[in-house]
Amino acid sequence: MSTPSNNENEDEFSLIRRFFSSQKVKRADVAKGIGDDCAILTPPPHTQLAISVDTLVTGVHFYPDMPPQDIGYKALACNLSDLAAAGAEPAWVTLALTLPRADSHWLHHFSEGFFSLAEQYQLALIGGDTTRGPLSITVQVHGFIPPQEALSRTGAQVGDEIYVTGTLGDAGFALSLLSKKQIHHPSYDYFLSRLYRPTPRIQAGIALRKQASACIDISDGLATDLSHILEASQVGACLYLDKLPLSPALAQETPYQAVHCALSAGDDYELCFTLPPAHAPEVTHALSALACPVTHIGTITEKKGLSILTKEGTPFALKKKGYNHFG
Amino acid sequence: MSTPSNNENEDEFSLIRRFFSSQKVKRADVAKGIGDDCAILTPPPHTQLAISVDTLVTGVHFYPDMPPQDIGYKALACNLSDLAAAGAEPAWVTLALTLPRADSHWLHHFSEGFFSLAEQYQLALIGGDTTRGPLSITVQVHGFIPPQEALSRTGAQVGDEIYVTGTLGDAGFALSLLSKKQIHHPSYDYFLSRLYRPTPRIQAGIALRKQASACIDISDGLATDLSHILEASQVGACLYLDKLPLSPALAQETPYQAVHCALSAGDDYELCFTLPPAHAPEVTHALSALACPVTHIGTITEKKGLSILTKEGTPFALKKKGYNHFG
Repeated sequence: MSTPSNNENEDEFSLIRRFFSSQKVKRADVAKGIGDDCAILTPPPHTQLAISVDTLVTGVHFYPDMPPQDIGYKALACNLSDLAAAGAEPAWVTLALTLPRADSHWLHHFSEGFFSLAEQYQLALIGGDTTRGPLSITVQVHGFIPPQEALSRTGAQVGDEIYVTGTLGDAGFALSLLSKKQIHHPSYDYFLSRLYRPTPRIQAGIALRKQASACIDISDGLATDLSHILEASQVGACLYLDKLPLSPALAQETPYQAVHCALSAGDDYELCFTLPPAHAPEVTHALSALACPVTHIGTITEKKGLSILTKEGTPFALKKKGYNHFG
Repeated sequence: MSTPSNNENEDEFSLIRRFFSSQKVKRADVAKGIGDDCAILTPPPHTQLAISVDTLVTGVHFYPDMPPQDIGYKALACNLSDLAAAGAEPAWVTLALTLPRADSHWLHHFSEGFFSLAEQYQLALIGGDTTRGPLSITVQVHGFIPPQEALSRTGAQVGDEIYVTGTLGDAGFALSLLSKKQIHHPSYDYFLSRLYRPTPRIQAGIALRKQASACIDISDGLATDLSHILEASQVGACLYLDKLPLSPALAQETPYQAVHCALSAGDDYELCFTLPPAHAPEVTHALSALACPVTHIGTITEKKGLSILTKEGTPFALKKKGYNHFG
């Protein structure tokens, strides 16, 4: 199985070094970064670690012709979104990259997209692996959070209000444009930027510490991800269809498409969280100061399950609930 | 690109839950394990973290017909070997699994092999991701080490003695048996067990803290991995061909094959380390108490590069230096 070589030309080791050893972020808590068998890190005292790992596979999570700089950005953004949902502050990242071949053009653009986002959060690349195989990217992020302050899916209480950041459904609509090759759609660039360059809501997550009773990021669609909160918290919810925040571009589409994308399409990477009503003024003020849009979309109920009401108060039946790799 | 479903039958979420939520290891430092957006961990005070990540890809790192229990074991063993090389004590692990389909037979055996090794080291599975795609496994391990005591590739000094644990070349010879389908070889089972079930030298690595001047695990072949120490430490080395420790089974093969496997084949996951001569008695005694074989195989030299001497004192020319994915 092994294919020994004389290490001529560009080999695995120099490939890794060239693109991933020149990062600008320097952190005092990284005692030893990439280049040895292990990274050695010094966690700050009296702090918990939040850790999340995600894999993106070509042809499953993105089309093979997605620009490499966007793949690099998004692979990291999806993971940072998980830190955001926990209320954690990003610190370190590892990158396991499987590539069909050593393509320096691809690596150049991929690492550009990856590092552009990492630098925004002073996130240090501390290690990784580069292997040959079908294109696949596994990123693991590590963040800090004060003890007992991590947000999670459990904790939503009957009577809590349900909020989301940003707007919903743009990424899902972008996927439908891509699948139909509708490159002349007037808002094509806008929708694609929402799919390819989601904004991890890191600062919003930090502002939600000690405020939100539950929080999750919307990767599989609002209905599916909110259901995770409901199951973990053993409560139900009622959503108001007309409150779902839509971008001006998505609001131009048919109501059926817009609502379907907002409820069921994944890839938005906004936060969905629950708040005791008494916390609402402080939180909405804090998020507004961060220029992070936030919308009240529903209420936690004692009655289990997720019900959705139209503006007229009639129940709305949701057909497709979310993304499922093995469905 | 998304393939929404009604979450009928065995879906992604229950698949993960069923096989990976029933681990026996419980650790007080895991505040929140698998099942939320992030794992939340409490690192012990005054301790550094050692982190390593590795990917195994089907058809590249293992044959597609490798038994899943051995794939599960080995994917973890390769990573634990990196912790061993740093002298770290294993604590937490994440698993990112890409599978062509949700195959419960495969998952059952894979998780059995994975957990059998994890339990030996009280290693807790804290998170992961399961995606659809060509079979690939990315494992990240996290271990603890007292501040400033991590072993690394740098630090080898002229005059230090070079040692390896265990025996060399068995895994490489197993690969040649597999590639030639020599299933009737008298030591077939022995060689395959060395390839499929390497022993991570965790206790040996811990015993080397404050003793070894440099350490690495042999994943790419002794010559290649020792060269990493030499480059990082800016020294050279002389190896004695007749000192290379061979298993009784490998010693039965032709000297050319045995030496080639011992020097150049990867996958042994033994430790190669350098010791100031004054530390040798204490270290060899400590490793002997751990029933870990250890052999003196060479010396660190001022002259750069790796030279290899035969028993007669003549230079030995090494043809193939190690494994290179993109070579």
